[in-house]
Formats: sequence, C-alpha cells, structure tokens
Amino acid sequence: MATTGRVTLPIEVGIDEEVKVLMQRLGADAVRNSDGTELPALVDELAAKVYSTYFPARGDQEWAVANPETSTHLYLMSPRTPARGNVVEIDIMEGYLREQIQPDTEVDLARFWQVIDRTTGEIVDFADWEITEGGLVRVNNAVAGHVYTVNFLARQIWDGTQMYNYITNNWDEDPKRHKERPYNVRQDKVWDRVRSELDRWLSEHTEVDVVRFTTFFYHFTLVFNDKRKEKFVDWFGYTASVSPEAILAFEAEYGYAITPEDFVDEGFYNCSFRVPSKAFKDWVLFQHRFVTSRVRELTDKVHASGKEAMMFLGDNWIGTEPYGPHFKDTGIDAVVGSVGNAATCRMISDIPHVKYTEGRFLPYFFPDVFNENGDPVGEANVSWMAARRAIVRKPLDRIGYGGYLSLAIKFPEFVDRIEAICQEFRDIYEAAEGKTPQNSPVRVAVLNAWGSLRTWQTHMVAHALAYEQTQPYVGVLESLAGLPFDVQFLSFEDAMNGALENVDVVLNVGEAGTAFSGGRNWADPQLQAVIRDFVARGGGLIGVGEPAVLSANGAYSQLSDIFGVDREQSWSLSTDRYPNLEPNHFITSTEVGCGCGAGIGQISGPGAGKVRGALEADVTGGARYWVPVTPDVQVLQMNGVSVEVAAHDYADGRAVYFAGLPFNQQNARLLQKAIYWAAGSEDVYAASAHAADPRIDVAVYENGSVFVYNSSLETVTSEVYNVAGKTETVELEPLGSIWFNH
Amino acid sequence: MATTGRVTLPIEVGIDEEVKVLMQRLGADAVRNSDGTELPALVDELAAKVYSTYFPARGDQEWAVANPETSTHLYLMSPRTPARGNVVEIDIMEGYLREQIQPDTEVDLARFWQVIDRTTGEIVDFADWEITEGGLVRVNNAVAGHVYTVNFLARQIWDGTQMYNYITNNWDEDPKRHKERPYNVRQDKVWDRVRSELDRWLSEHTEVDVVRFTTFFYHFTLVFNDKRKEKFVDWFGYTASVSPEAILAFEAEYGYAITPEDFVDEGFYNCSFRVPSKAFKDWVLFQHRFVTSRVRELTDKVHASGKEAMMFLGDNWIGTEPYGPHFKDTGIDAVVGSVGNAATCRMISDIPHVKYTEGRFLPYFFPDVFNENGDPVGEANVSWMAARRAIVRKPLDRIGYGGYLSLAIKFPEFVDRIEAICQEFRDIYEAAEGKTPQNSPVRVAVLNAWGSLRTWQTHMVAHALAYEQTQPYVGVLESLAGLPFDVQFLSFEDAMNGALENVDVVLNVGEAGTAFSGGRNWADPQLQAVIRDFVARGGGLIGVGEPAVLSANGAYSQLSDIFGVDREQSWSLSTDRYPNLEPNHFITSTEVGCGCGAGIGQISGPGAGKVRGALEADVTGGARYWVPVTPDVQVLQMNGVSVEVAAHDYADGRAVYFAGLPFNQQNARLLQKAIYWAAGSEDVYAASAHAADPRIDVAVYENGSVFVYNSSLETVTSEVYNVAGKTETVELEPLGSIWFNH
Repeated sequence: MATTGRVTLPIEVGIDEEVKVLMQRLGADAVRNSDGTELPALVDELAAKVYSTYFPARGDQEWAVANPETSTHLYLMSPRTPARGNVVEIDIMEGYLREQIQPDTEVDLARFWQVIDRTTGEIVDFADWEITEGGLVRVNNAVAGHVYTVNFLARQIWDGTQMYNYITNNWDEDPKRHKERPYNVRQDKVWDRVRSELDRWLSEHTEVDVVRFTTFFYHFTLVFNDKRKEKFVDWFGYTASVSPEAILAFEAEYGYAITPEDFVDEGFYNCSFRVPSKAFKDWVLFQHRFVTSRVRELTDKVHASGKEAMMFLGDNWIGTEPYGPHFKDTGIDAVVGSVGNAATCRMISDIPHVKYTEGRFLPYFFPDVFNENGDPVGEANVSWMAARRAIVRKPLDRIGYGGYLSLAIKFPEFVDRIEAICQEFRDIYEAAEGKTPQNSPVRVAVLNAWGSLRTWQTHMVAHALAYEQTQPYVGVLESLAGLPFDVQFLSFEDAMNGALENVDVVLNVGEAGTAFSGGRNWADPQLQAVIRDFVARGGGLIGVGEPAVLSANGAYSQLSDIFGVDREQSWSLSTDRYPNLEPNHFITSTEVGCGCGAGIGQISGPGAGKVRGALEADVTGGARYWVPVTPDVQVLQMNGVSVEVAAHDYADGRAVYFAGLPFNQQNARLLQKAIYWAAGSEDVYAASAHAADPRIDVAVYENGSVFVYNSSLETVTSEVYNVAGKTETVELEPLGSIWFNH
Repeated sequence: MATTGRVTLPIEVGIDEEVKVLMQRLGADAVRNSDGTELPALVDELAAKVYSTYFPARGDQEWAVANPETSTHLYLMSPRTPARGNVVEIDIMEGYLREQIQPDTEVDLARFWQVIDRTTGEIVDFADWEITEGGLVRVNNAVAGHVYTVNFLARQIWDGTQMYNYITNNWDEDPKRHKERPYNVRQDKVWDRVRSELDRWLSEHTEVDVVRFTTFFYHFTLVFNDKRKEKFVDWFGYTASVSPEAILAFEAEYGYAITPEDFVDEGFYNCSFRVPSKAFKDWVLFQHRFVTSRVRELTDKVHASGKEAMMFLGDNWIGTEPYGPHFKDTGIDAVVGSVGNAATCRMISDIPHVKYTEGRFLPYFFPDVFNENGDPVGEANVSWMAARRAIVRKPLDRIGYGGYLSLAIKFPEFVDRIEAICQEFRDIYEAAEGKTPQNSPVRVAVLNAWGSLRTWQTHMVAHALAYEQTQPYVGVLESLAGLPFDVQFLSFEDAMNGALENVDVVLNVGEAGTAFSGGRNWADPQLQAVIRDFVARGGGLIGVGEPAVLSANGAYSQLSDIFGVDREQSWSLSTDRYPNLEPNHFITSTEVGCGCGAGIGQISGPGAGKVRGALEADVTGGARYWVPVTPDVQVLQMNGVSVEVAAHDYADGRAVYFAGLPFNQQNARLLQKAIYWAAGSEDVYAASAHAADPRIDVAVYENGSVFVYNSSLETVTSEVYNVAGKTETVELEPLGSIWFNH
C-alpha cells in the first residue's frame, strides 16, 4: 500500500509541474535545494518541510575577500629533497597549487615552520636554514646524501569543496563564479561576523524549516596539485584545522607546544590509518570541543528562529565528530549524509543524540550518470542493495536524493525505480515500528586504536571511495553493517579498562602498522595479557589480515599463539609446516538447500593449488604467507603455502584467522559463522532464522515479523530456517523481499 | 669428436662389465663409491682416479657409542607457551624427536639454559624456574597472559644426514644399520681419536687417490619432529656447532659471554635471512677459524700419504665456509657439490683456493627418479639446462654423478643422454681453453648483510630446494649465474669502506627485514649517504622486492627518493598517484627478430588490469603496493595500483625497481637490460653479442669463438647480433647449441 513521508526531494526553479507530480509519486514530505540551485517560489504551496543549505565558513565571500587575514591555514610538507653537497635548496611549492596554497611566511618561522633531516629524523636548527628571495628554503650545513623536507604553514585561499566544484564544472569561464576563500572562526572578528550573518539570514528566510549546514568550520584535508588535480584527500584529516591562534591556544590549555611535525607526521598527516600520537589525539579533542561549542551557538540561533538545525556529514565537518564526547552538546537536530554503502549508512544511522538521520542516496542527479551512456537504474539498484542491508539493521529515519531534478526526470525508468525504493523504505520502517530487528546474543567488538570515535569509519580514506588495498579489511565493516550483531568499536585502552566484560567476540582487522590493526599498541604486555585472558576464559577472537601485528620477540602477530598462525617473515622458512587441513568445519560448511556449492566440503592435498571448504572465502588482496605455528590449528583454506582461513581452540576460547575479507555475501556469511563459532555458539546459529543461501538475508522483529530479502542481483531460491519454528522455501527475484507476519 | 676425462662415475660391486663400458662411453677418468656402496675390486684395473668417501665426525661408531659424552650439542627452543596463571609448565621436548635430541641437564643450567618471557623479551631469573621430575620446565612467578619459552642445550645423538637416510630407507628393519652418533672434535679425546683413525685408514687404503671428506665436523641444522619428519632445516645453520667447550673458549677469546639466546635468536636460530647480530657473526668466524685449522691437520695427513683431499660441500660442512677468510688455509685440493641449478653451480665453481671443482649432477641415481614412472632423461635435461648457463660463465673442472649405477643402467636412453652431456661439457671446457668468456664491462655487486661470505648463497634455505616465498628473489641470483657480468657480493660495511669504487651497478634484493634486503642496516645514515652519493655520481642501483627497506622517517624504503617508488603502507593512501606509464623503455622493449612478443610495446590505460611493455616481467609472489613517490619516475609495468617495474633517473645515475624476478629466461633478459640501463650503457649492450630471443644465450671467448646455446626446451629461431661484427640467424633445437669460430 502506498504511503507517504520520510523522503526529501531536491527541487529547482522552472519545473513546477514535474515537482508536484514527483512529490506525490515518491511520497516526499521535504524539499531541498542543492549547491548551485535555488528553491523555487513553489515551496510555499507544497505541504512539505523546506531545507536550505547554509555555508557558515565560506558563505560570505565579499567579506572574506575584503579580510584576507581571516583565511584558514594548513600544514604541508615539501618534497623529500636529497642534498648532494652541504647546501640544499628545497622548492616547497613543488607540486602544490598556488591558487589554493600560499606559504605563510609572516608567522614566527622558528615556531611554525620546521626543516627536518629525514635520513636521521633530526630537526635542523633554525639558524641553519633560510627562505630565499625566490621562495625556496635553503639549508646550510646540510649533510651530503641526507634527505630534507620542510614543514610549512600555509594559508588556504580556496575552499576544498568549492575548488572541486569549480574545477570540475570549469567555472573559469563563468563571470558569476569566484574562488571561495574559507575563513577561520577562531578569529573573534570572523566569529562575530558569522553569528551576525546567520541572524540576518534566519530573519530573511522565513520559508525555510530546516537549516542544512554544509557544513561548519574546517574542511577535511583536500589539496590539489599544480595541474589542478587532486593531490591529497583525507576525509578525516585535521590538517586544515590548524592556525597560529589555535596552536597557541592548545599550548595554553594543554601545557605543551604542539609542533609542525605533530601535524605533518613524516608526510602522512595523521591519516586515520596511522596509529595516532598523543599530541594528535589531544588536538582532535581540542578542536572537537571548540567546534562543537561554536556549533551550539549557531544551533541556538536556529532554534530561536523556530527552525531545525541539520548537519551535512561531510565537507567542513572536521571537529564535529558525531561519535565524539561533545557531539551531544551541539544542539544539532538531524544529520544527513551520503550513503555509499552499508558501512557509511550505519555511520549515519547509528549517530547518537540527534532526533533523526537522513541518508542521501545514490546516484546523485549529476550528468556523470544521467547521460545516454549512464545506467542510473543500475546504480540505484546497487546502492539500494547495499543500503538496505544496513537500513534493516539500524534504520535511517529518512532518505533523499541530491542534484538536479530536471536531469533525473528525463529518465522515467529511473523515476519508477526510486518511487518503488522510497515505498520499500517506508514499508520496512513501518513494519519494524521504528525498531531494530533482534540481534544475535553474541556481542561483537571491533578493536582498534581509535575506539568509538571512528565507529563505522575504520579503513576509510575518502568517503565511500574504494581503494584496492583496503578492500580486504573494509569488507569486514561492510559485512557487519548488515549482520544481526550488536557491534561496538573499542579502543585498546577500553579493552584494558574492562570493556571486554560486555563482549563475546573481538575483531582485530587490518594491515600491520595501521591504527586498525594496532601497530605499536601491541608492544604493551598488559594489552596482550588482557586479550589472552579474554580468550582463555572463553572469549572469541577473529583476526583479519595482519591482526595484532608488531614484529617482536619471535612473533609477527603478538597473538600468534592464540590464532595458531603467523606471518612467515622469511626468518623461519627453515621450519617445516604441516598444516592440518579441515574441509568440513562449521565455518566453511554450507547447509542443505543452498544453491551456491556442494553440501560437503572438498579438499585436495597440500602443495600446489587451492585447498578449501564448501564456502570459499575470497581473500583477494589479503595477507600472504601466513603459516601454521601451533600443531593443533585447523586450516580451513589454503593457497600454496599461505593459510587463508584458520580456526584454533585456545584454552576455553577460540580464534579464527582470515587473510582478508573483501565484501561479498559469501564472505559476510563466513564472518557471521566465524563469529558464532568463535563464541562457541554454533547451536545459537543453528536455531536462528537464517537462509541456506548466503545471498538471502533475514531479519526477525520483536513483534514476530520476519523480513527475508535478496541481497543480490540474481533470482535466488533458498530454504529459510526457523521462521516462527518452521522452514520456509522462498524464491526471490533480484533485490526481492518477502515478509512473514505472525 | 669424442674426448675423455673430467667425469666421475659412481661404481659398485657386481656390474664390472657394465662399469667398463660406461667408463668408456662417458669418458670417465675417476670413480667413486656412494653412501652405502663399496668400491669393487675392479678399481685396480681401471685407469682411473679412485675417490672414497670419508666421515671424520661419525665414521667411528663403535667408539662413539662407547664414549657417549663426546656427542655434539645443539641449542633448541621450546614451544611458545602462554601462562594462564602465575605458574606455567613448559614441555620443552614437545614436537622434538627423542631419538635425536636429549636435553643436557648436566650442564650449568644458569649458564647454558634460559627461560624468556617472549611478551616482554625479558630473561626470567634463574631462581624463578626449575626442571620438574617429569622433565618439564616450571616457571614460578610467571605473569598471567605472557608467553614463555625455554632455550635449552641438548645433546645430538643422531647425525642429521644419517638420520635422514636411515628413516627414508627404513633401516629399522636392517640389523646391520645403527643410528650414528656424531662426536665433537673440540674434545681432545675425540680429536686424538679422529687423527689416529685417519692415519690408520690412509695406510690401509692404498687404492684410494682422493679422500672425499663427507664432510668434516659439524652438520648444518637438521632437526626432526616427534613423528620422524623434518621439523627444521637450515643448510647454513650453526645451531649444531655449539657445545659448552666451544662457548667457554669463545668467551675466553672474545672477552664476552655468548648466550643461549644468541643462538636461539627468538626461535629463528640465526637463519641466513636474519640480519646477523655481532655475536653470531663473531661465532661464525670463531668456528670457521677452528674448523679450518683442524681440517688442515687432516689434509696434511692426506697429502703425506700421497692422496688428494676433496671436500663435499654439504652435510657436516659447517664452519668450512668456502668463501670465508680462512678457507685458503684448509689445504683442501678440490670441492665437490651437488648442482641444483645455476646459482648452486656457481657457488661451487667460483670457490677460490682449490685446484679444481666438481659438480655432482642431477638426477641422483636413486629409486625416487629411476622407476617406471620417473623421467630421468627429462630431469637430466632440466638440470643440464640450468647448469650449462653457469658452467659457460665459470666452468666447473669436472662433473659427475652419484647414487647406484646398477639402477641407472636400466635406463638406456638416460645413459645415452648423459653420454652426450659429458661430451658437451668437455667440448665447452676445451673450446674455452679452460677460460671464462668475456664479461660485460659493467661490474655488478649484490649488496647484503653477509657480503662475500654468502657468495651465490643468498636467499637459500635448504640446498637448492625451492621455496615459494623466495622465488621472486633467488631468481635474481639464478639469472646472474648465467649472465655475462662480473658479480661481487658486498656487505654494507664493504660499501661504506669504499668498495663501490669498483662497481657500476649495485643490486639490493629481497624482503623487508631480511639480511639480503638489509633490515636495520638501513638505519645507518652513512650507508644511505654512500649509496646516494654512488648513484648521484653516475652509478646504477637496482632494487628487487623490498630493497633498502626500514620503515622510518616517512619512507618504507630508505632509498625511495632514488627508486622513485615506495611501498604504500596504507599511511599515504590519501595521496593520489599519477603513474607515468612508459611502454617503450629500453629495459622492456624487444628487438627485431624476437619470436617472443610484439616489437612495439603495448600499454593500456591505468586502472584495472595490467600495463606492460613488450618484455613482460613475471613478478609472481613479489612485493605488492609499491607506488610512485616522485613525479618523474617512469612506470614500465603496473598491475592495479602496484608498480611492478619502474625506472628513475637520479642526478647523474639511474635506478630500476622490480617487484620480483623469479627465474625465467625473459626475466633474466630484463635484469640484463636493467643492469645496462642503470649503468648508462645501452650502447654497450647494443654492440654486444646477444640474441634477439631471450631464450638464446651467447658467450664470446677471447680467442674469438662464440658459443650460442638454447637455454630452453623449445626449438628457437633467432637472430644473433654482433657475432664477429655480423648478424647471424640460428635455429636451435631444445638445449641445442652452435659454435662460431673465427
């Protein structure tokens, strides 16, 4: 039955009739403008909430241009430059875009710049370098054959998102467009202006119900190169949150000076894959506190004007930290974000302390997809397939689209498709009565250096973009986002402070040396002891890739005794390995009625080729050369000398190792079964509602309803077990679903 | 024309006529017995040298059994055992074979045993552990959740090679066979006995011309498990060279105590892939000096009896170190070793200070190959193909076979084949007039932590056995063994002491953290500066796999500025990469007339799939996720995001990177061209005698002869350039060859 609501439509001027029809077809109850579109006068007639974008850190360009000293800053590193003799000249701007970056030589160079010998790691004495007339940094008394870099403070004279839009849409030709300068709200003058401008705007825009902040004050790190192409993008980056004012305020508050190198971080700029330093963690909280307190001043004004404050999760979102300790103080009513996949959907829908969340679905109504060669229906299906897995587990409250509606309506099949998606979204939301379905009693924790601050955000570089190298690990998050488990994100400190008391299975996922695997944290004997104790007393441990890795004391993974496998660093090639191949393990076995493989595992002899059970893990790009290191570990999948899946009993607990788990439904099922096995709860799995075929997902609600949905683009026939005590057989078309109500 | 000589035949009792015929057909001028065969009386009639095996460290079993305190020792580590509470009991013999290993509890346990907390790396106080009546080690005051191991001294009561032969041939049933105990010549009583026994034996064996020592005193590390299967094998291992006597003598000489952990080395036992510690390097030289001085006493006796002393390169060869500083003092006349491939062949033929070298060719006349399902002719061909590449560059003086002749003569096609091989060997030797062919003027050095001590021995675990993980690196050695270059093996100390003055191109090859890549050596700024200076002044640098890797100061490879590529450790995924793809580079281009690919390189766009030039490097198993880090590096081959081959100009020099180079003829050609390119000598390559097809090798002798040979099992037609100034076209059958004499 067609219902309405929970849907936001982007609208624009000149297509009033189409807007009206679409509002009705999609059941939309809110409208919005987009970057570069105006709300039509029509909005007054529509029985809908009106959202309007608002840019607090770059919306006021006339003023910004008149006050250039208000620009934001960022820290950058020069190229690594080898010295051939005792003098080396470094072109710090090599590869940077002068339209965006302006080295700030007005500051106290001794305090805010650094030259570092990257061969020794030593800081070069300030007396030993100077800036030449041509803007180069000349190091005197260099050591020949050493490599030098400069950490320099620069003004950011072009906002990242606006730069991207400007260059992508080639606005050089458009006299109405200018390069927008971001300004820094830490300056009193700026902050006064931002507040008064918002007051003015609120009073002038009575038609607006929801102020959609896009976003607040500091942009994630986005740096372009001298060819106007993207040079560096870190969606979590704090590089552009720096300024002399902030750095001095930090020192006053924390009692120590944060240095340029604390931000430049050997050129890695504290990307979230780096094990965070104390200084950087302090800085994040320092800015989080500052940003959230200033956001509150703005949301108070919004509320005073009778409107709602919505935050876009992106662009200038740095410091807001929706999973940080001060987000609850922002006064933000709602968060909207782009849904790239299940994990990014959960990142939005799990945000606490807001009244509602909204997912902006793909595809964006932009010409890159909406053209005669594009496949908008296909993209909508893939997007919905991923998002639905997450939405079922933890619903978004609303969905919407973005971009140019005038473009989308030229594709009637697409409109048909999103009409159906909007309806299915409402059906799920309403059948669930706004609640989440029942989760497994097995409680899962993802252990990493960031803990809850990066909830659903681990292994992510740029929002929802795919990176070949991260697929084996981000796939675990994508799997979990659609599985019926309570998932916590815990830090190593949390684990040492007793947080594992409320956990059944711990996951540690990622490459050696990353914050997600843990890197140097594993040098802490207390951490190791806590995990050993947890497993020995009956807990489950699952490692993916290079878990607990810190090569030391005879082991690569410091928990190799628990996993029963470890990486062959070529230091123990002399040791013979006799893997115990186990093709019929609970984890890799399939169930009767599954169309995806033989019911009984097959295994071939050791040596060349693959060895695997019936459910095959795809470990593409995962860790290599992990080998058995305890005599009793069971090897469930092997390729040449490399163990790809292993299971190990350890005292009263259990551990599972996967070389990698890029996302697909079969890998998700393997992870699900591994979690049950690690928890010693195979019987709970057997008694749970689930489908024989891993492509079919099942959700059970408290009210007895059971939702069975095909998370694939194929037609699937499968048995579904334990549907109100019975086995049902379903045949579901691609993306199809069925409700069993009792 | 059939010639004779330079061939050794294994003979045995009971086939006198066949022996005579075969001696003639193969042109053999020497005969030998094998392990377990007797020389027939016939030897007196044969106009041939007679070799006889001699076992100085285990040949005297009646005496050994009567003097059990003379056994050798070895250091072993217990399993890594986690403590659940404050007491942990460790079963040190778990997984070891009691027939081979006997923990030595008679020694001063505080001095010769250690218990180590492998979670902290700390040594447990001697007062805190004890040996239980059941032979377990009980640690009191353990820390729950920490992992403990025991370093224990054990008696070796079964010689490694004899154990292998005994178990493999199931001699349990044979009442004439006993488990042979090795004895330790460092004990005066033993040494007296060994000398007097040799005196007796020499006087009794007048028929023997050559005493073939098999071998001397200490066996390479070979440990079996409790199921009588190989547990640990390190052909270079010094683990079984230890003894209380030696350890105390070392301390007296070096002024510091070498500890159990110096040998156990976290359980890696100083395998040659480990960056060697100072203590271990001292120990190797200490034992090398001892062993060679004692060998000299034996060879003096051999010479006094009018015989020659030949050393078998294997078994109990530890301490002889043919490339060590004291080998010249041994008095050894000849070395014989098994030829597994080109690199092992060069390891034998390049040994200095001996009168001649001999290669024992494969297959060994044993039933594992000589049976109705075996392919002895095929194995002989593959072996000859590999060995010939090396022999041409640096001839062995003799070749031979081993095993049971009675078995081989049942395969007449095999006898035909080795008759031809023996003749071709002599033809090459004689045409070359015993000299090596002309090498390229480009001088190559392989830089590693061992330097010349491990000449042709890098990346080797067990003699000539293939390990999947080492293939991408050992392939470089295999390539070099058959290429026309002067190759030196230099240590990092050598490089810092000026050795690069005589080098044009430096190779650094292997995995991160290994002795061959260099590991912690790269923390030395002086080493980095020396290499940078070498390249900047015009030198060439070639890295394979993970060269110069030590993750520090913003780089994974400390020479990433030279290579222009570095590993993506997931810390700079935020940095965009724009590889400069170069399909038409000198290194990867083919020449007209080659049948192996298009003359002009093909390249597809970046992104999915492979990008490569005309000559494709096979980098199977090599390093992944190496990416461009300088704007000017040329990417010659790429797979997804991973650079597989790159070339970079650096000041006046050049660098080349390969992700891996497992051996094949095309990879060998790529390496050859990379060496010329890195040296800036493309013109020298163009003017050199070489074939268009990489499967064809060419050697040019000082006397003007040119040897052209097909190093493949296919028929190949190819142009050969610069044969006395002309281009010749050859068609060579599999393994075929042709001489051009001028």
